Amino acid sequence: MPKRDGISMSVIRRLPRYYRYLTELEQAGVNRISSKELSEKMGLTASQIRQDLNCFGGFGQQGYGYIVDQLRSEISNILRLHEKQNAIVLGAGNLGQAVAAYVRFETRGFVLTGIFDVNPSIIGTRIHDELEVQDVAKLETFCQQTMPVMAVLCVPQQAAKLLVDQLYTLGVRNYWNFSHYNIARKYPDAVVESVHLSDSLMTLCYLMGNS
Amino acid sequence: MPKRDGISMSVIRRLPRYYRYLTELEQAGVNRISSKELSEKMGLTASQIRQDLNCFGGFGQQGYGYIVDQLRSEISNILRLHEKQNAIVLGAGNLGQAVAAYVRFETRGFVLTGIFDVNPSIIGTRIHDELEVQDVAKLETFCQQTMPVMAVLCVPQQAAKLLVDQLYTLGVRNYWNFSHYNIARKYPDAVVESVHLSDSLMTLCYLMGNS
Repeated sequence: MPKRDGISMSVIRRLPRYYRYLTELEQAGVNRISSKELSEKMGLTASQIRQDLNCFGGFGQQGYGYIVDQLRSEISNILRLHEKQNAIVLGAGNLGQAVAAYVRFETRGFVLTGIFDVNPSIIGTRIHDELEVQDVAKLETFCQQTMPVMAVLCVPQQAAKLLVDQLYTLGVRNYWNFSHYNIARKYPDAVVESVHLSDSLMTLCYLMGNS
Repeated sequence: MPKRDGISMSVIRRLPRYYRYLTELEQAGVNRISSKELSEKMGLTASQIRQDLNCFGGFGQQGYGYIVDQLRSEISNILRLHEKQNAIVLGAGNLGQAVAAYVRFETRGFVLTGIFDVNPSIIGTRIHDELEVQDVAKLETFCQQTMPVMAVLCVPQQAAKLLVDQLYTLGVRNYWNFSHYNIARKYPDAVVESVHLSDSLMTLCYLMGNS
């Protein structure tokens, strides 16, 4: 597994899961949890949890467990979820609309400030009575004025290729990539998190045939 | 990493990526590729590719590389993408509609045969002029008649919990899970592939703060 700052991507990818489970525990009124209980809930081993959290300094006390709201807050800080970084969505088709409407950006470190498309029949419509879909021709001016730092790519691969060239030049270097365009290959310094829905579906197909 | 049939989940998760890249190569008219070229394209090492494919018998010839359409077809067989397994979508809100309309189930081993919701204002509408959203009250009869083997869960966690109880009893044991409900905890024998969009967004937030 590749590493970032000495921390393996597997550990980094587990952080949001910890955050999610701790949020649920907090909402359920649980104040304290042992690493054993947390591990059973999450389907990990207790030693795995201790090792993971030790990468960031370690937070529990031997024999006492974790204070739920404290640990949740620590992980929120590590993930930087308190930030309000401007993000835009490219593509307001089915997927772009779903991502804009369904994902709670504001509790995940981002503020959605714009959504763009090329389709005249979509431009001018609103997502959840809020964000108005803008013509992608206005992207350059928009970026120069509001300086978004992250773009969500909900467009096909060819469109993504052209848009990333434009966005990168405009200073947008962080991407949540739902397209199959391989951004890192052309821009190795870009920060990219890809969601390949069809890969996930094919994995399920494999697992169903081999369970 | 957990294993299935002695093959690690990391290898299994790379199979759809191989398939995707090989499909692109085939579409671009490439007949043959060395493991070195394929590895550069995919951001893996050549030895990693050889190791991965050796888990399934190995397909290339030393010094000759891979025949693109042959390898693509072999991987398609391993993934069982030629199957036409009946699948249904639960939840026809933004996310369910996007998944139903955007994901090409028919080239990924599945046929989408039904989509269900509780919302009277959505029931009766059609996705892409094809599938009509049905009342979830009809789910039991539908499952008994058409025997779907996989359900896509595009509903909130609480609804997912109740629906999985019902679906599992009706014989649906495979889930593409977009909710945060932990299915495996209650049904260890279910086959579950989860997509946690908010985990992915939080990972991006972390990477942006630590790049």
